[in-house]
Amino acid sequence: MTTGKINVSVENIFPLIKKFLYSDHEIFLRELISNGTDATLKLKHLTSIGEANVEYGTPIIEVKIDKEGKKIHIIDQGLGMTADEVEKYINQVAFSGAEEFLDKYKDSAKDSGIIGHFGLGFYSAFMVAEKVEIITKSYKDEPAAHWTCDGSPEFTLEPADKTTRGTEIILHVAEDSLEFLEEFKISGLLNKYNKFMPIPIKFGTKKEKIEQKKGEFVESEDKENTFTEVEVDNIINNPNPAWTKQPTELSDADYKDFYREMYPMQFEEPLFHIHLNVDYPFNLTGILYFPKLGSDMQIQKDKIQLFQNQVYVTDNVEGIVPEFLMMLRGVVDSPDIPLNVSRSGLQADGAVKKISNYITRKVADKLKSLFNENREDFEQKWNDIKIVLEYGMLSEDKFYEKAGAFVLYPTVDDKYFTLEELKENLKEKQTDKDGKLVVLYAGNKEAQHSYIEIAKDKGYEVLLLDSPIISHLIQKIEGDNSGMHFVRVDSDHIDNLIKKEESTISKLSEDEKESLKTVLETIVPKQTYTVQLEALDSEAAPFIITQPEFMRRMKEMSQSGGGGMFGMGNMPEMYNLVVNTNSDLATSILNHKDKSAQESLVKQALDLAKLSQNLLKGEALTAFVKRSFDLIK
Amino acid sequence: MTTGKINVSVENIFPLIKKFLYSDHEIFLRELISNGTDATLKLKHLTSIGEANVEYGTPIIEVKIDKEGKKIHIIDQGLGMTADEVEKYINQVAFSGAEEFLDKYKDSAKDSGIIGHFGLGFYSAFMVAEKVEIITKSYKDEPAAHWTCDGSPEFTLEPADKTTRGTEIILHVAEDSLEFLEEFKISGLLNKYNKFMPIPIKFGTKKEKIEQKKGEFVESEDKENTFTEVEVDNIINNPNPAWTKQPTELSDADYKDFYREMYPMQFEEPLFHIHLNVDYPFNLTGILYFPKLGSDMQIQKDKIQLFQNQVYVTDNVEGIVPEFLMMLRGVVDSPDIPLNVSRSGLQADGAVKKISNYITRKVADKLKSLFNENREDFEQKWNDIKIVLEYGMLSEDKFYEKAGAFVLYPTVDDKYFTLEELKENLKEKQTDKDGKLVVLYAGNKEAQHSYIEIAKDKGYEVLLLDSPIISHLIQKIEGDNSGMHFVRVDSDHIDNLIKKEESTISKLSEDEKESLKTVLETIVPKQTYTVQLEALDSEAAPFIITQPEFMRRMKEMSQSGGGGMFGMGNMPEMYNLVVNTNSDLATSILNHKDKSAQESLVKQALDLAKLSQNLLKGEALTAFVKRSFDLIK
Repeated sequence: MTTGKINVSVENIFPLIKKFLYSDHEIFLRELISNGTDATLKLKHLTSIGEANVEYGTPIIEVKIDKEGKKIHIIDQGLGMTADEVEKYINQVAFSGAEEFLDKYKDSAKDSGIIGHFGLGFYSAFMVAEKVEIITKSYKDEPAAHWTCDGSPEFTLEPADKTTRGTEIILHVAEDSLEFLEEFKISGLLNKYNKFMPIPIKFGTKKEKIEQKKGEFVESEDKENTFTEVEVDNIINNPNPAWTKQPTELSDADYKDFYREMYPMQFEEPLFHIHLNVDYPFNLTGILYFPKLGSDMQIQKDKIQLFQNQVYVTDNVEGIVPEFLMMLRGVVDSPDIPLNVSRSGLQADGAVKKISNYITRKVADKLKSLFNENREDFEQKWNDIKIVLEYGMLSEDKFYEKAGAFVLYPTVDDKYFTLEELKENLKEKQTDKDGKLVVLYAGNKEAQHSYIEIAKDKGYEVLLLDSPIISHLIQKIEGDNSGMHFVRVDSDHIDNLIKKEESTISKLSEDEKESLKTVLETIVPKQTYTVQLEALDSEAAPFIITQPEFMRRMKEMSQSGGGGMFGMGNMPEMYNLVVNTNSDLATSILNHKDKSAQESLVKQALDLAKLSQNLLKGEALTAFVKRSFDLIK
Repeated sequence: MTTGKINVSVENIFPLIKKFLYSDHEIFLRELISNGTDATLKLKHLTSIGEANVEYGTPIIEVKIDKEGKKIHIIDQGLGMTADEVEKYINQVAFSGAEEFLDKYKDSAKDSGIIGHFGLGFYSAFMVAEKVEIITKSYKDEPAAHWTCDGSPEFTLEPADKTTRGTEIILHVAEDSLEFLEEFKISGLLNKYNKFMPIPIKFGTKKEKIEQKKGEFVESEDKENTFTEVEVDNIINNPNPAWTKQPTELSDADYKDFYREMYPMQFEEPLFHIHLNVDYPFNLTGILYFPKLGSDMQIQKDKIQLFQNQVYVTDNVEGIVPEFLMMLRGVVDSPDIPLNVSRSGLQADGAVKKISNYITRKVADKLKSLFNENREDFEQKWNDIKIVLEYGMLSEDKFYEKAGAFVLYPTVDDKYFTLEELKENLKEKQTDKDGKLVVLYAGNKEAQHSYIEIAKDKGYEVLLLDSPIISHLIQKIEGDNSGMHFVRVDSDHIDNLIKKEESTISKLSEDEKESLKTVLETIVPKQTYTVQLEALDSEAAPFIITQPEFMRRMKEMSQSGGGGMFGMGNMPEMYNLVVNTNSDLATSILNHKDKSAQESLVKQALDLAKLSQNLLKGEALTAFVKRSFDLIK
């Protein structure tokens, strides 16, 4: 039996790093700036605990392009490395400096925000550079070192004459990566990945006009103000973004400013924000914003950015942020989210599940407090946020449980009820003779106008529920609130929707009704309309078309997916034709002797009923309009 | 100056492999079966060129679960390894066996379909196993070897007593991966990743009833047929999927069978298929199917599967398949697609761009030949494929150039024209007095019925163009075909849409017209309707509402994105009210002495015109219907 050690030959590790580790070449800059940031934060930590006896100062990281020399320089003022440390941290691939550091300074280093997990980030430099140099001077009293490597495993290491503390990385950009020598390219990358990193990053300089207003700072004889132009460092990042602060430190204006900082192209202000801040059992900070949402659920995603210790990672937060909140905007920052894990892996990850639950809870709490603090304002925002909340109720049980405290049910007259208020307010008038509480709703104020009016004339409230997923939601609410029934206002005649004990007396005898029905059924197309005679108020409309709630709801659920009954989405539409036997029209139809005039009358009445349901279309509508024009000419 | 070699310490390579190389743990099985397939195909190749003097036979790969022992076995009958080869291929990580093999047998091996690129696949075993054993016997006359490793870099290697050729991998499944001992889990993975791999894969056995029909094979006294139940290998894959064959070997039924094999839950048959098959300058095979598409462009994506040498890779073909074809279904198999490259990387990759262009060209050629071979059939399918083709014309210039040969423009009467035929057919009647060729179209046969009828009465053709992106497309077509103008049939009165030399004589004098206009403008709301007097046929409708083409099209383009004018999507709707001065109604309005009756008349006429444009809604519609019921009671 032989035993031995598996040997990794290094000739093959470079292509591996290039091919596998990072799919995006552009992240080299993020990685190198992260290293510089780490080195600076480590120094800060060591000086703060007295282990490094140097002045920390106000270090920055500088990025420079040398277009002619085809070089990019990344220079930090962090702790630097001795030759021995270069040997240890750079020449031994996969030996993680950050890991060892964290081991050694476990307790005190936790809050210092050190970024690197693996020491591999440095090698991403070879994705764009054919040769890489490191010139580094440690904060310790040792000579500077100069390391050079051309991407083969051979390196050289020699003393250097650098006297200032810190590390300079020089990338000799490869021919296939010359694009990275363009200023707009680097500036784009810095803006994408490093916009909120904790150490100031300088990229070039800019001219700044300092305006000295007449009489304000300087006494001047001129009428004009005085401008002084100065060259200042161009700092591309905001090292202290809002989410890293405590909510108590921030005003409403600060939150709005940060929103504009993140979404400079967004003109509309957010409706409100939710500050996320948790230390245990995981670390997470962030700010989520509710934007004004249209009714389209698709286009709004991918607006939340994920950071780790202020380093931008991705705008795909699937699995981390609950799905119904992916329409929000903002930032989530957590070092505890595994990055190179698949979607299904993320969903199975316990820590990630906890994060997602925390965000759900936090959003629900915020909504509750917004509702309690200023109900009127909350009601005004309802239309812009309802799609998120209703989708949340359907998809997250935890959210559904809390939703009773703030989810609203608006009426067509702009009153807003919570579910409990709705029950309380409707109880008296809208409980039918069997004790069912009937909630009337409309899907469209315009299209169902005549039906809404009829219900309102009876003194009933009509809700306006117009989200695309509403059928699913009311199905769920009915399931959890026994005795409560939602019916759309056009799903039957109002007296049948809320049945009371009293009944209207019919003008027509049973025989007359029978013969009216026979007449109607010969004229009205059977396959679409079921004739239903009702003794209603004589002033009520003579013909009304209704569509039974159950069928329509199942159809809608089946069409929007995830519910209803299989195949119902494609069933033909079925309607009832409610005919008011107490109307004058019913009597005239019944008494008409002229068959053809009787038929015209029924058809005209049916056309008018169809108009009210938006069912008169195409050829039939053209004929109706022509007929009607002829009547008035 | 020191020089040296960068050292990769192996203690750190295992976590690296686990964390970075594969984001999905489940791919271990795909990798190990790929290795077994490689080993088998290599043997086949060596025997075929006479380098291995053994019987190739009919080798299979077997997967076995040992639930009690917490083990998974993957057994192949390929070329196996000697102890020296284990040392070389297994103990030297990142030394790619496939690469060396391909180097050595470059020319002859090209077509043998060897899968592995890196030798790293084997190590994915450690993502789910705490210990891995290899028992392997080479086809060469050398003793079998037994390698064991527990995931640390230490391994043991000793002789084994295996006598049959091939390699057995034994995974001792780790506690956190016990799910992979479930039969449904493994069977799910095999179905996902290995369904079409080239060597038969056995997973368990199944009972098969062999029916012997009376009198067919066996003479029997029984009335009943005889069933014999036999235990047979359960082969989970189809080693020769349709796309690996030549189009000439396949019938239409074969293509449909393969569609069902890929989409067993899909009930509808595909409309047609496109067989992709190219060797140079890249290697690509595949079959794309046109399914019946609804009008929804969203839900149909992610149905094309990407394979490499019959190994499933992903169902995300973004960047590889042109975007407009991502609504299709089917399979693309190419070893030439870089896998671990980002989206933007893919788009920049020259080979990938070539593949995408090839697919576009191939689809265009197929459409052309389908059109030429059976135009009637193609016309019948038009509604189900148009959304893809129209989107393709907008997004791919290469496709647009070829589209003239098969893209159709249907009329409301189900005639179908190509663009050239359209020009030819419309030339005579629909060229206006300025020489412009005016193409009339409707967006909805029902909603624009009355306008369509008016145009048809004039002998004009009306196209039915109802895709959501049609505004963009006709804008493009107009740009490329000077003198051709598309106007929706309701965008003005027909005599203004196609202006001819003749003009109708007006019944009204200029003075009368002036006073009619004054009357109308006091009653008709100015902010929505512009009154436009026209001397039309006296039998034509008295009032017509039209919406100018340019404004409406810009608005639609702005709403559907990517065109039109900034901000136009939110502009209020503006209409023209065309009043026929030759109609009887115009005269009655003019001559009415009773102001209030005059106003009623205008309002009723406006309501009727609004009905034709589906603009009478809500309260106004309710009032109209009530008024009309009162008229007939």
